[in-house]
Amino acid sequence: MSASIEVNGHTYQLPARPTVIVCIDGCEQEYINLAVRAGVAPFFASLASRGTVLTGDCVVPSFTNPNNLSIVTGVPPSVHGICGNFFYDAEAGEEVLMNDARYLRAPTVLAAAAQAGAKVAVVTAKDKLRALLGHGLQGICFSAEKADEATLEENGIDDVLARVGLPLPSVYSADLSEFVFAAGVALLKSDRPDLMYLSTTDYVQHKHAPGTPGANAFYAMIDGYLSDLEALGAVIGVTADHGMNAKTDALGKANILYLQQVLDDRFGADVTRVLLPITDPYVAHHGALGSYATVYVPAGTDQRTVHQAIAALPGIELVLDKRSACERFELPADRIGDLVVVSDRLTVIGTTPARHDLSGLDVPLRSHGGLSEQKVPLLFNRRMANLPASRLRNFSVLSLALNHAD
Amino acid sequence: MSASIEVNGHTYQLPARPTVIVCIDGCEQEYINLAVRAGVAPFFASLASRGTVLTGDCVVPSFTNPNNLSIVTGVPPSVHGICGNFFYDAEAGEEVLMNDARYLRAPTVLAAAAQAGAKVAVVTAKDKLRALLGHGLQGICFSAEKADEATLEENGIDDVLARVGLPLPSVYSADLSEFVFAAGVALLKSDRPDLMYLSTTDYVQHKHAPGTPGANAFYAMIDGYLSDLEALGAVIGVTADHGMNAKTDALGKANILYLQQVLDDRFGADVTRVLLPITDPYVAHHGALGSYATVYVPAGTDQRTVHQAIAALPGIELVLDKRSACERFELPADRIGDLVVVSDRLTVIGTTPARHDLSGLDVPLRSHGGLSEQKVPLLFNRRMANLPASRLRNFSVLSLALNHAD
Repeated sequence: MSASIEVNGHTYQLPARPTVIVCIDGCEQEYINLAVRAGVAPFFASLASRGTVLTGDCVVPSFTNPNNLSIVTGVPPSVHGICGNFFYDAEAGEEVLMNDARYLRAPTVLAAAAQAGAKVAVVTAKDKLRALLGHGLQGICFSAEKADEATLEENGIDDVLARVGLPLPSVYSADLSEFVFAAGVALLKSDRPDLMYLSTTDYVQHKHAPGTPGANAFYAMIDGYLSDLEALGAVIGVTADHGMNAKTDALGKANILYLQQVLDDRFGADVTRVLLPITDPYVAHHGALGSYATVYVPAGTDQRTVHQAIAALPGIELVLDKRSACERFELPADRIGDLVVVSDRLTVIGTTPARHDLSGLDVPLRSHGGLSEQKVPLLFNRRMANLPASRLRNFSVLSLALNHAD
Repeated sequence: MSASIEVNGHTYQLPARPTVIVCIDGCEQEYINLAVRAGVAPFFASLASRGTVLTGDCVVPSFTNPNNLSIVTGVPPSVHGICGNFFYDAEAGEEVLMNDARYLRAPTVLAAAAQAGAKVAVVTAKDKLRALLGHGLQGICFSAEKADEATLEENGIDDVLARVGLPLPSVYSADLSEFVFAAGVALLKSDRPDLMYLSTTDYVQHKHAPGTPGANAFYAMIDGYLSDLEALGAVIGVTADHGMNAKTDALGKANILYLQQVLDDRFGADVTRVLLPITDPYVAHHGALGSYATVYVPAGTDQRTVHQAIAALPGIELVLDKRSACERFELPADRIGDLVVVSDRLTVIGTTPARHDLSGLDVPLRSHGGLSEQKVPLLFNRRMANLPASRLRNFSVLSLALNHAD
């Protein structure tokens, strides 16, 4: 295969050694720090002296899909087009799910590497990401969630449960992410992909705070698999799609700002439209409550008045008009509303109480979406040469691993 | 005694029942939430159904002294004058310690209540706060740190170790705070003060994250003493001087912005002066590193250029000129520099590496000082009537307990 490829304006060296990029969903840096402190993460601990420990900024909205797509394309949502799970199609008058690959506007580095001759494998926890991450990819691509349904034709692999040696995990479990790592190790042994992308789910992080037993057990599990991957010769880059914070008061009650309700009271029922791009088919663990919303303001309603009304609400950190939001967060203008709203570290944004099913929240809410979840780990089991002087992003992880690792 | 007093423009009903105000130093709300979740804080847990659970904003800089003084005076630092441990006296050319009561510009509610006939007692963890909190107070006022030195003449009480039944605690220990609570319970039994103020130290919170064993043990201890105080008939109000956050990367390395060094490189050695008002005689557990600094810019150096240079640094959340800072944070203009600098949740501000002794940091840095530590608990073991509609502050705690508790 050729020595390098160019994708979305960036050059990537094709891997000479198996390279594994891991996206730990919802990996607030403190999870790793406190697992190391608890003595259960020796692989992570060792990176401080023999690898590279950096911090990167994720994409805002600090949600799973925009960031996973940025990581595999190496560019922000303004280029790849995926800025959440939903956008509002004003012409059609409906909210449109963006899980389909036809909404993706940029090729992935994974597909380009495969095209150039690299053996590529992708394993995701939830199936919702599979179609997007595997777009145009000639290689292996399957989800833990539907591992039992993988076929050679569709996924480039079959008989996954037997290969991995684990039962099909529940979609709401730590096992779903463990399956991703176990599959990665099995694949590295059997198929030895040149480039592998493993993406977990943040079920555990939504429920367990850093340093608590449930979190430490999860990171101990990850640490063990990373150690296995390294023992098999992999260059490893670890990052996250977003961080995670408690969104509750001292007794664990969620701090929810029901923004649609506030705007309905002020401007009339459903005059404005509050869209929460965290909404997806799997919301039991966060009730579709995150720290980011976008608001559509119809002609005839003064946008400046709506803007100021939102900015004055307690719990709001930032309100930007579409143009400023697209510039600051590098978002696609045709897929966000007229305003972008970010709530503070301890607050989430809802629409109206009736539209959020909180019955699945069996523990105090932890969530993400805002600026407070933007800092994520950027870790490598190799030293880095000639680190770029520019701001580090989580979506630099492929470039760093492929172009800068010793 | 008369039914009410007026202090610093606010009216307070004198307590008909013993009222205990507790300031848990560095009590990020998540400490209580996760101790409750761990099942070790039944008193706190019960407040959700039978008491009042609120969140208040503390004073920024989110440091101990400004907030303790706001709590006992009921007003912001612009009125009481204490905006940190140090300010720079430009005329004298020296940094001045503000631990002395002559820097206090407002009477305390405690002193006024005693003046009006209430029996008042104050117990602080560290002695540095004692002189300020006890200013003008006819009553009991001593520190756990120097409990063995308390005299009737100076502290309104003697023989404290025997009364409390505990040995003199180390100044760097959880025991220092436990002594405060134990003394509170002993005093409530023996002297039954009408109004008591108990103020702990954040030694534990600087070292232990919410929900981890060291933190849960500390909050279990507090929970037990609060339960004892309640059993003795006390109306209890609990708040904090500030929250607490990890200030580290994924492997626990502190994110330190050495601001004096950056400004020296840019504008010349010691042309500007970076003052860290967290600096005090007890810095081993945080290395004098917090998320707030004030910068003095001499005549002849363009303040706007310095302002913009600082605002552009990674890790900086906010830079305000003196006027804006005094307005937003209600600070005394004569005791802050020309600029106020707040760093983000994960970053602390230092001067130069040589001026910070980090040898006492035996665990990854956790600290405070910024906007990210502004939200604190405001909890009561009574229901509240006619809560004010205005923004709740931690220094509303006395007003809420005395004027609104059922």
